[in-house]
Amino acid sequence: MFKRNLSSVLLASAVEELSSLPGIGKKSALRFALHLLEQPTENVERFSKAITNMRNGLRHCSVCNMISDSETCPICSDSRRDRSLVCVVESIRDVISIENTGEFNGLYHVLGGIISPMDGISPSNLKIDNLVERVSQGQIKEVFMALSTTMEGETTTYYIYKKISKFPIAVSTIARGVGFGDNLEYADELTLGRSIANRQPFKPENQ
Amino acid sequence: MFKRNLSSVLLASAVEELSSLPGIGKKSALRFALHLLEQPTENVERFSKAITNMRNGLRHCSVCNMISDSETCPICSDSRRDRSLVCVVESIRDVISIENTGEFNGLYHVLGGIISPMDGISPSNLKIDNLVERVSQGQIKEVFMALSTTMEGETTTYYIYKKISKFPIAVSTIARGVGFGDNLEYADELTLGRSIANRQPFKPENQ
Repeated sequence: MFKRNLSSVLLASAVEELSSLPGIGKKSALRFALHLLEQPTENVERFSKAITNMRNGLRHCSVCNMISDSETCPICSDSRRDRSLVCVVESIRDVISIENTGEFNGLYHVLGGIISPMDGISPSNLKIDNLVERVSQGQIKEVFMALSTTMEGETTTYYIYKKISKFPIAVSTIARGVGFGDNLEYADELTLGRSIANRQPFKPENQ
Repeated sequence: MFKRNLSSVLLASAVEELSSLPGIGKKSALRFALHLLEQPTENVERFSKAITNMRNGLRHCSVCNMISDSETCPICSDSRRDRSLVCVVESIRDVISIENTGEFNGLYHVLGGIISPMDGISPSNLKIDNLVERVSQGQIKEVFMALSTTMEGETTTYYIYKKISKFPIAVSTIARGVGFGDNLEYADELTLGRSIANRQPFKPENQ
């Protein structure tokens, strides 16, 4: 892209860093850098601080593993939410997607990934034991598995189902409104919202 | 976009700041934020520092007004470049675009905008006096006007032509390989390169 230099090491290293963002190439990174150059110094300081503070300050909720500014996240602390229903998701992105649909009023459990032997992710790398522990406490009546409808997602759902089906709870999965093989993260809000409202009992024989 | 909260004020403010980047909405900003959250702390520190350092450290070249880490930019300081040829551009983005074509070996003069009564930009807001001063020193043999082929660009070219045509220099403009009404910044490198190689004498009666 830059056959000759950018006439500034400072600019070049800012462009380098900005192009590390997902989906951002050198040309977009340069646009970002030049845009930031045109902003008042205070704004750029605030921009950088917000990012550093986020990275350094964020913790994980001790209950559901969602990102949080405090020990327990605002969702787990919210007394208006249905504590008998827990939605199991792969990542914090999925919690945000589901929250945006406005269709779900229970709590969450963020696994931090899905079982994927190809990527070297085994059940022990995920927050599955914490989930079993939560379920064993008896307050939960339904575990709603909202993982991507990919091979890895289905495998993880089945694995968790086997671990928690011994408890007196219902296990549901996201309705197949989400196209097979799609990543949950890219589903539109309407489809995702419908598939939450129409969630169905998990039947392992359908595997 | 975010109908409910992101469960974290720190995340929300980082997303807010990232969505201030040009062309970036809340959804992309969230992807960036979550990506940064997954990086090691050192990397995120380096990311933020590169941006702040760029904003605080960058200066403008005292000769050509290009961004620079020092008093005179690397292009103006480069003895291998043709000091009798000066390319007049609107912005530092244009210098980078032209440098990338590899077709130009002279110096630059960055105006910092173009004459645009609609946006309240008059000749006095631009580095036109500096250009006239540079031309009056006698070393420059050709001034190559490489402004966008828009109404404002043509007006600025004509205005500058009137100011410098009293000196014994040639005034050229970018060849019309660049489609009429296009912004220089979006031209592909081949088209831009050709139009630099085929640059033509400026004839004010073609206006």
